[in-house]
Amino acid sequence: MMKLNSFGQWVLMGRRWLNPFPRACMFSSAVKQWEGGVSMVQGASRGIGLEFVRQLLEKSDKGHVLATCRNPKGATGLLELKNKFADRLDIHQLDLTIDRTIEEAAKSVKDKYGRLNLLINASGILSIPNVLQPETTLNKLQRDSLLLTYEVNAVGPILVVKHMWPLLKVGGGAGTDRDHAIVANISARVGSIGDNGLGGWHSYRASKAGLNQLTKTVSVEFARKKDPIVCILLHPGTVDTDLSRPFQSNVPEGKLFTKEFSVQKLLSIIMNAKRSDNGKFFAWDGQEIQW
Amino acid sequence: MMKLNSFGQWVLMGRRWLNPFPRACMFSSAVKQWEGGVSMVQGASRGIGLEFVRQLLEKSDKGHVLATCRNPKGATGLLELKNKFADRLDIHQLDLTIDRTIEEAAKSVKDKYGRLNLLINASGILSIPNVLQPETTLNKLQRDSLLLTYEVNAVGPILVVKHMWPLLKVGGGAGTDRDHAIVANISARVGSIGDNGLGGWHSYRASKAGLNQLTKTVSVEFARKKDPIVCILLHPGTVDTDLSRPFQSNVPEGKLFTKEFSVQKLLSIIMNAKRSDNGKFFAWDGQEIQW
Repeated sequence: MMKLNSFGQWVLMGRRWLNPFPRACMFSSAVKQWEGGVSMVQGASRGIGLEFVRQLLEKSDKGHVLATCRNPKGATGLLELKNKFADRLDIHQLDLTIDRTIEEAAKSVKDKYGRLNLLINASGILSIPNVLQPETTLNKLQRDSLLLTYEVNAVGPILVVKHMWPLLKVGGGAGTDRDHAIVANISARVGSIGDNGLGGWHSYRASKAGLNQLTKTVSVEFARKKDPIVCILLHPGTVDTDLSRPFQSNVPEGKLFTKEFSVQKLLSIIMNAKRSDNGKFFAWDGQEIQW
Repeated sequence: MMKLNSFGQWVLMGRRWLNPFPRACMFSSAVKQWEGGVSMVQGASRGIGLEFVRQLLEKSDKGHVLATCRNPKGATGLLELKNKFADRLDIHQLDLTIDRTIEEAAKSVKDKYGRLNLLINASGILSIPNVLQPETTLNKLQRDSLLLTYEVNAVGPILVVKHMWPLLKVGGGAGTDRDHAIVANISARVGSIGDNGLGGWHSYRASKAGLNQLTKTVSVEFARKKDPIVCILLHPGTVDTDLSRPFQSNVPEGKLFTKEFSVQKLLSIIMNAKRSDNGKFFAWDGQEIQW
């Protein structure tokens, strides 16, 4: 008996095929259908996220990309790419503070592709004019800033991983050169507790330490369940984006990277990530960062 | 010219005395007035916090203790101690989720003692029946659980440190055997990212990693400003309290500590903490824990 499974694939129903994602399925129609893989970049309207989308599309003539952001209509950079790569780029609305939008994005990916091979959580907040300022002293800590930063930088990304997990399990490395899917969460060296010699930026530092711990925790479960997924954390360096712009005056010469350079380095780490890299935290140059 | 400063001490106002907490003041009236020091235990109604209060009172015939909890009227353990140590124990209401109660507790300490020598943040949540359960898999992650756990385990304690900071600066080690005040935040080994080999308990792990990062960040500022304050993080071991009770079945024999044993070990670390311990994370046995 054949039956349409929840991923829109015809599968043989029977004792031998109770696994809804039979290997035979992954390596036949699915691979051919989505050669080059299906990638999702969360937080893709500008900065590093937008650059990930651009390089994923431009550096290969294969593969599909889903770009998500809070306000697709205002995402001019993504809309320009959509003009050029109409059949390889989808743009979805996703707001990390609203569960429904994460669930809807997952459903869209499931309905169209039935799988995912790469998830990059690229969003992040450090400052918002008149709302959020990185703290220069303990005296400036505010409950709302600590909670908002944690929600956007740690809670949201890990909930995206939660909802994409079934699709990443189906995807694995099918259609790509890898034998596993990748979750790459963009963290920051200032999230490292051991590396923290300067202090300040309390909300941001704690949110990234939280993201690091959540990603590590998830990586342990993926490994234990033998899921074909590798989770890594990435530090992009200080990159010339809207996020870092108000704080660039103290960056030493030669240490402020272009988006193009940083993302090229990070994509190289992503594309070459091995099983043994699961749960690790890498800087743009491939060096592992202490927790 | 003499002037009453904001801590109710008469200080000489002039170029040489612009520091509002002159050393001469700390080591004269203040020391004599509060010999044995002033300690605050936040989260003192039961478990480890209550045991800290008990041992601080029983192990010395000097020193004053402020115990805070959400519901003082229901804190039977504290009320029993109050009967025995009426003149050395104050009980204050403090709810980590309400800024006003933290500010009011700080004002109470300031009005009565004008200083603080030891702050122990002992509160913590792991589970609440029908509300919060430690996650056994990524599938069980919920936004509300992640945020609530972070607010209580990381945000609240660091806001207590913020509001007690001026009092800790005044206090330093005056009246005690130390030359500095101590902030001891109770963390947990499962908050260590590097030590995380089992996964699960996502909300709790991330909240403690956040607390670790926030405490480290604060310790850097205290050191840079030469404040007479040492900040440490402590892992109490698995202790037989309400917090651990639902999860004790997997604890190896001999590894479930009594409150008395754990707090005795932790107080020994606190009382012997040196400047060079500032910003470090210690287990009950004095061993440093990786981040």
